[in-house]
Amino acid sequence: MEKKLILITNDDGYEAQGINVLAELIAPLGDVVMVAPEGPRSGAACSITPTRPINLCFVDERRGIRRYMCTGTPVDCVKLAVERVCEHMPDLVVSGINHGDNASCSLHYSGTMGAVFEACMKSIPAIGFSLRTLSRHCDFSPYAPEVVRIAQYVLEHGLPQDVCLNVNFPEVPRLTGTRVCRMGRGQWIHEWAPANNPRGFDAYWLTGVFQNLEPDSHDTDYWSLDHGYAAITPIKLDMTDYSCLQTLSSLNL
Amino acid sequence: MEKKLILITNDDGYEAQGINVLAELIAPLGDVVMVAPEGPRSGAACSITPTRPINLCFVDERRGIRRYMCTGTPVDCVKLAVERVCEHMPDLVVSGINHGDNASCSLHYSGTMGAVFEACMKSIPAIGFSLRTLSRHCDFSPYAPEVVRIAQYVLEHGLPQDVCLNVNFPEVPRLTGTRVCRMGRGQWIHEWAPANNPRGFDAYWLTGVFQNLEPDSHDTDYWSLDHGYAAITPIKLDMTDYSCLQTLSSLNL
Repeated sequence: MEKKLILITNDDGYEAQGINVLAELIAPLGDVVMVAPEGPRSGAACSITPTRPINLCFVDERRGIRRYMCTGTPVDCVKLAVERVCEHMPDLVVSGINHGDNASCSLHYSGTMGAVFEACMKSIPAIGFSLRTLSRHCDFSPYAPEVVRIAQYVLEHGLPQDVCLNVNFPEVPRLTGTRVCRMGRGQWIHEWAPANNPRGFDAYWLTGVFQNLEPDSHDTDYWSLDHGYAAITPIKLDMTDYSCLQTLSSLNL
Repeated sequence: MEKKLILITNDDGYEAQGINVLAELIAPLGDVVMVAPEGPRSGAACSITPTRPINLCFVDERRGIRRYMCTGTPVDCVKLAVERVCEHMPDLVVSGINHGDNASCSLHYSGTMGAVFEACMKSIPAIGFSLRTLSRHCDFSPYAPEVVRIAQYVLEHGLPQDVCLNVNFPEVPRLTGTRVCRMGRGQWIHEWAPANNPRGFDAYWLTGVFQNLEPDSHDTDYWSLDHGYAAITPIKLDMTDYSCLQTLSSLNL
């Protein structure tokens, strides 16, 4: 059987610890190509770069893992990899391991998951891995077996059309377990801190506090993380609200 | 009755024709505040700016419309407006009118809709308006009555929790009608054109051709635009695929 082709990307840049740990964990499962941003792209969401050319650069090959970096966003990385780097369509795209969780509404801002959505739009099975941590240097070993297990499952069984996985880990020495969950409701508040600006503009740093809007629901990704579980959330590309569609149609809006 | 507070933003920048037309159309419905990017942010999706301070600047007040610009993304604009500009929570957020449609998968890349998602996360009724055009200077008059009608409807009736509207117009002298539709399946292909780079990097411009993956379905946003209809698509923030969630849970993944 031909070896599977696995594309790895992230939003923290090709030098981040998380992506290089991920590459080594995934390497035994197939041929691994990394195409990642040159530097941090946290909060890049599904953004693309239409206004300037993107440079693509081969970095090195280490233990069979070919590494490329580009000057674009995580979504640009997947687009470039598929069309200009990979010999054929990858069998799997994995993104991460992100330094910071992408549970609840943070999914919408996530560059890690932006890359996953892009792969999903191209009908490639795709998984985003994120760790709830503030640290640049983490011990990823408690999550290694789950990363490999989930990637292996998706390589073997695929995923439904237009569905991808958002996998989040709590920062714990040992996982309580793994739960398949829904995306919890949440929002960020108190988001701006004044910045000093010597030229006199009103200037602010984006910051914020996450507010879990359904702390008592046990079936959310956020609850799982709070209780030491890894959270697997299946995410779909079709964002239509079909119930509202029916209501609005009947109202003749 | 107190006048409604309406926040206007976009991803083409505060000087774009579309947002200023939108502001004038919406002005009779309430107090209008515009907080928009300083320049083009096409393809910004839900991206945010965590890595540098954002400048906020009052531009002018014209016919009762207060205009501010900031150096961030469309999502940053909504976050800043709500916390640092508006006296109280807006009753409505409208984004656009975008120069270019945001139907089908383009929704995921859209800065126009990124701002709408952000408002929706903050429980503000929100609508994105986009026109399928390649032009910077358009005749928006064929769509003006629909813009006002839809905004008025949402101001009066609100929208279900965590649901917002993606409204797209075809570029036609006269609309065939308006349809409530779902988000069609589609993807972009042939996305990279070589760019010249005097320093010798492999460099590429993002471009691409849109491929409608279900051209025979008449209930999609894309089909409506192709046939001269305005397309109203209700969009939800919860991206969980509940059917896949059930399957994966039963598999004990």
